[in-house]
Amino acid sequence: MKEVENLHARYAHALDEDRLEDWPNFFTENGIYRIATAENEARGLPLPVVYCEGRKMLRDRVQSLRHANIYEPQRYRHIISSVIAENPSKDVVRSISSFLVVRIMENGETMLFASGRYVDRISVKEMLYEERVVVCDSRRFDTLLAIPL
Amino acid sequence: MKEVENLHARYAHALDEDRLEDWPNFFTENGIYRIATAENEARGLPLPVVYCEGRKMLRDRVQSLRHANIYEPQRYRHIISSVIAENPSKDVVRSISSFLVVRIMENGETMLFASGRYVDRISVKEMLYEERVVVCDSRRFDTLLAIPL
Amino acid sequence: MKEVENLHARYAHALDEDRLEDWPNFFTENGIYRIATAENEARGLPLPVVYCEGRKMLRDRVQSLRHANIYEPQRYRHIISSVIAENPSKDVVRSISSFLVVRIMENGETMLFASGRYVDRISVKEMLYEERVVVCDSRRFDTLLAIPL
Repeated sequence: MKEVENLHARYAHALDEDRLEDWPNFFTENGIYRIATAENEARGLPLPVVYCEGRKMLRDRVQSLRHANIYEPQRYRHIISSVIAENPSKDVVRSISSFLVVRIMENGETMLFASGRYVDRISVKEMLYEERVVVCDSRRFDTLLAIPL
Repeated sequence: MKEVENLHARYAHALDEDRLEDWPNFFTENGIYRIATAENEARGLPLPVVYCEGRKMLRDRVQSLRHANIYEPQRYRHIISSVIAENPSKDVVRSISSFLVVRIMENGETMLFASGRYVDRISVKEMLYEERVVVCDSRRFDTLLAIPL
Repeated sequence: MKEVENLHARYAHALDEDRLEDWPNFFTENGIYRIATAENEARGLPLPVVYCEGRKMLRDRVQSLRHANIYEPQRYRHIISSVIAENPSKDVVRSISSFLVVRIMENGETMLFASGRYVDRISVKEMLYEERVVVCDSRRFDTLLAIPL
């Protein structure tokens, strides 16, 4: 589904170009953003690492990243692949895709930062995320909170 | 070709979600799975690192991975890109694509595991692999035998 | 846009299969190839790391890579994702995409080599690059000059 791949692509470029303020606009008004680990998902543990509900909470998160958090200047690069999209109903698309994120430090060093899958529920009408669950392969989260995945 | 990309995507997700038992079902009844190195392919050396012919042999391989092999718990993440697909005849698609696989150890460490290209012959009727050749860029294969690529 | 993704895919496979002599043929006769850093692009500094204009200059570059430069034998693997393509006019496509390149040394070691985005202007008629700007996330360029990105 071309529109779904396009949505994922624009989301990735917004983060990689440090346009964090655009990030909440990829979600519906009450959209949910959740980061979980594959381990916890497999065990049915409901505890997410990060949970945001609604654009307002997403905007607060961006604000705190911009103003409160102190972190090294860095860049990210999201690589997305293997998008599978299905229409359980005409209003909703469910999509699974794989991601890999590398982090580029200010001194130029590049490292693998995170990998996993996106599990999305997308509003067909708005072509926005009603829910984006980021299921990380690794349970290491020391630095994961730096930017949205 | 949307169906080809979808086949590659479902194959990757099956492996990354540890659904190894589904893996043989991505091949035709007599489908061939072969792992080779780019070096040997370039030299015309026919010796594959791994060779399986037919679903039965693929199932045996999964069995031995599940029961015989002892290895650290780990996850994999396949990233697929640059899919090129051609129809030499109406029954067959030939596809070339690039892959990158990262491995996530139980302690959370993530490393580059393998890269290379898939060279596929696909049955159009069944939309399954008649032959999948995994041409690895590296000749290091110490741990490559852990899961199917 | 299927043709654009196909162009990006064929470009990547040509480089990864060491068909450097094919590389200039992905550009229009006067096509421009430029490597820049994200840092310099953001600051509006026009100094590119590499600048080639026209197939002749691209061919010269390949020649010097083949004959003049001494470097370790190595392979590359380009992973491309998040292709966004737009038609500002009927003759031109503008495309942005993300890339990740890993390098595989002769001893088999694999490392992250470069990441960034391609910013392309493509001739619709020829389906070739009128301009390909490689914006690298990192400013480390010690080894970047080995092969085209």
